[in-house]
Amino acid sequence: MRYLKWGLFRSLLVVTSEASDVGSLRAEGRYLTAAFPAIVTIPKMSLEFQIESTSNRARAGRLITTHGEIETPVFMPVGTLASVKGVPQDTLEDLGVQILLGNTYHLYLRPGVETVHKLGGLHGFMSWPRAILTDSGGFQVFSLNALRKVTEEGVTFRSHLDGGSHFFSPESAMAAQIGLGADIIMAFDECTEFPADRARAQASMEMTLRWAERSKKYFEEHKHEVPWGTASGFRPPAPDSAYVGTAAPGCPSGRRPDSSSYTTGGTESKAVELRSTGQPGAAVPTYSEQTQSLFGIVQGGMDLELRKESALRTIDIGFPGYAIGGLSVGEPRNLTREVVEATLEHLPADKPRYLMGVGTPEEIVEYSRLGVDMMDCVLPTRAARHGLLFTSEGRISIKQARYAQDQGPLDPNCGCRVCRRYSRAYLRHLYASNEVLAQVLNTIHNLSFYLDTMRRVRHSIRLGEESRFF
Amino acid sequence: MRYLKWGLFRSLLVVTSEASDVGSLRAEGRYLTAAFPAIVTIPKMSLEFQIESTSNRARAGRLITTHGEIETPVFMPVGTLASVKGVPQDTLEDLGVQILLGNTYHLYLRPGVETVHKLGGLHGFMSWPRAILTDSGGFQVFSLNALRKVTEEGVTFRSHLDGGSHFFSPESAMAAQIGLGADIIMAFDECTEFPADRARAQASMEMTLRWAERSKKYFEEHKHEVPWGTASGFRPPAPDSAYVGTAAPGCPSGRRPDSSSYTTGGTESKAVELRSTGQPGAAVPTYSEQTQSLFGIVQGGMDLELRKESALRTIDIGFPGYAIGGLSVGEPRNLTREVVEATLEHLPADKPRYLMGVGTPEEIVEYSRLGVDMMDCVLPTRAARHGLLFTSEGRISIKQARYAQDQGPLDPNCGCRVCRRYSRAYLRHLYASNEVLAQVLNTIHNLSFYLDTMRRVRHSIRLGEESRFF
Repeated sequence: MRYLKWGLFRSLLVVTSEASDVGSLRAEGRYLTAAFPAIVTIPKMSLEFQIESTSNRARAGRLITTHGEIETPVFMPVGTLASVKGVPQDTLEDLGVQILLGNTYHLYLRPGVETVHKLGGLHGFMSWPRAILTDSGGFQVFSLNALRKVTEEGVTFRSHLDGGSHFFSPESAMAAQIGLGADIIMAFDECTEFPADRARAQASMEMTLRWAERSKKYFEEHKHEVPWGTASGFRPPAPDSAYVGTAAPGCPSGRRPDSSSYTTGGTESKAVELRSTGQPGAAVPTYSEQTQSLFGIVQGGMDLELRKESALRTIDIGFPGYAIGGLSVGEPRNLTREVVEATLEHLPADKPRYLMGVGTPEEIVEYSRLGVDMMDCVLPTRAARHGLLFTSEGRISIKQARYAQDQGPLDPNCGCRVCRRYSRAYLRHLYASNEVLAQVLNTIHNLSFYLDTMRRVRHSIRLGEESRFF
Repeated sequence: MRYLKWGLFRSLLVVTSEASDVGSLRAEGRYLTAAFPAIVTIPKMSLEFQIESTSNRARAGRLITTHGEIETPVFMPVGTLASVKGVPQDTLEDLGVQILLGNTYHLYLRPGVETVHKLGGLHGFMSWPRAILTDSGGFQVFSLNALRKVTEEGVTFRSHLDGGSHFFSPESAMAAQIGLGADIIMAFDECTEFPADRARAQASMEMTLRWAERSKKYFEEHKHEVPWGTASGFRPPAPDSAYVGTAAPGCPSGRRPDSSSYTTGGTESKAVELRSTGQPGAAVPTYSEQTQSLFGIVQGGMDLELRKESALRTIDIGFPGYAIGGLSVGEPRNLTREVVEATLEHLPADKPRYLMGVGTPEEIVEYSRLGVDMMDCVLPTRAARHGLLFTSEGRISIKQARYAQDQGPLDPNCGCRVCRRYSRAYLRHLYASNEVLAQVLNTIHNLSFYLDTMRRVRHSIRLGEESRFF
């Protein structure tokens, strides 16, 4: 509940300079009237980043979003289709997941942005009260679509599900991400293929920069349309409503005694309906003036000069956080590291730095050491589905016959609910028998291992020179 | 922890008349020396059945096993391959599951009886500290094997996995079930096909009776070979060992500091190893003089006279509980009910009555009303995997498009962790997107619905005439 208390504290103290953005809505409902009538106003920023410790280039800190605090450096599990495959949300909470990643491309196709928006955004839809980040869809459009067609305007691509034709532009990708309502969203970029010659990498980078400007412009004009924000036409509920400010714990809207008093269909009532969906499962603010935060993405292929130029010009456009994209696209690992290190040099120290799509347990430690604050990767969850498990003693392929009668825990140094309860022999049996529980338990362990690794990283940064990690 | 306290209480007070069965082992290790030196001896029976309330023909009571108490009437979820598909064991505990069913046929093929036995029996293998029942394998041999060959000796059948030839006799089916180590095991029977004429049903019944005698004989001669019992060659650990009597909570053997002090390989050390596997995840007795309990199975096709004869002659053989088999094999539902009702008349009132392989939520209520104490069925778990969900408002096929934007809970009258947290729209999305979490959450809800139904049934029986159920 730490972030919740912090949120109230912040709400009480901070007066925003952006208050005029929402105009007359202030009079109608922008105060948390039930708890703090009149004196409460809006937090200044939708995202705050506090660096609390450094150790050489590494930083440990705190990223504060509308849906909670995130300790950094952080590894973000991937929940492609609004689900971390096989793992219930309460288990993710127990694991200490503070931020999840959703894939705009996949969610755009299924269940569709309109549905998610109508059901309260991703937070309400999947009942996840903590922070969420969505990618721009760009990476999947490029990686899953051999037949894509790229123009200055955007990308035409075919659905991997039914072959239907779709179009993403910076504007439509922003609209999709605003509709999904993640706390952090990403500018629409072109993920430059590998290998690419300098001319190609430069042209691609230039387009990404133009798309970044368009992304930001659209976002600034539409950011208040976020499902949990003050959408146009929003009508606040009655001041004495029990759920102003906070969703009833563990209670989907349909179970709320008063939910039937709001009609659905029109724009206004729809906005109310969105809010009333709330975040079942935890007490989290659902009514907020805060908006999402749009991060820029640095491209430039494997050319260090282009990376520098991309970084500086992206910073010129101005974002509350910066990502390094276009890596893990087939290049050798030492090249990845080189590009990351060179790019980080040019990113502002006071803004979060997000390295997209990495990595192994060793890599997330290494990149944290270099000063990366955020990472995501499908590796722990995808590997789990293939029986590849990460442990303190190395990788284990649980399908191997050598584990058939191994009574020991998967990882003797791991305290996760899988290692506490089940033997390697049982996990091997589940995998060999194609039992669904294999995927569930393997994923829980791998995520636990990644999150524990990041806990140790953060602890090591705080310890500084005394640390064994760095 | 109720049953644990009861277990200790029972251990302190009851002196068994069967103590001589285990002969000189008494001197070596049959006392829970760490906690109760010298004065503690063995519970009299491995299974006790207490009827606490009746309402017309229905009975509510308590079945007491070595691995805990079971409130009856009870519905037993099916964990075919030592897993209730998709649901972790701690979630089953949270749901209030007191007894699980395992399938001998499937476990015999994968991972094999020897492996399960070596790893502490099913309780240790799957880390399930509560009660387990295994079927005899007979039903699967008959239902999954069109090419089976039945002789007086037993059944030759082919594995549905690789076509390999296998043979089950009453003796080998008992050996398998003793090796698996469930609390309640079943006599090897022939499940008479439907339809069958009277001569065929009678011949089949006669063979099941002969097989019941052979099952009992083998069981009596080998019952102490159960993994958690006093197997031949068993050597008790040192009296000061911390884990005498109780497994360390949440601790597979490999994590125990002292586990390395026991060698593996020989018969004696193997027995110790088995015990040290224990039941990770909960404090449960792992060292006991108690044996499994073998139930008889009534057959006789759909002929009520044969059913009566089968019941009486099975009772003559003598078992601590009786099952009604050979139903749910394709006959109409009203015939099932007729046969159940007629058979129940002839079963002893003071022994548990187990109706195998039923049923729908309505049926488990109805059969409880008729005086059945135990039931099992794959319906709630299998239906969940196909998106068919049971609710207080009727069945829901969650795949339907009508639920795509339904913000309400699956069942507004259900308090399960799925209904508390997720909307129908989200569950529909998971199912439509083929997400594994769909199976996990759907199964949790359906099991919760079945278990809640049985809670209401038991409550209604205790209320008697005032009840709305009966």
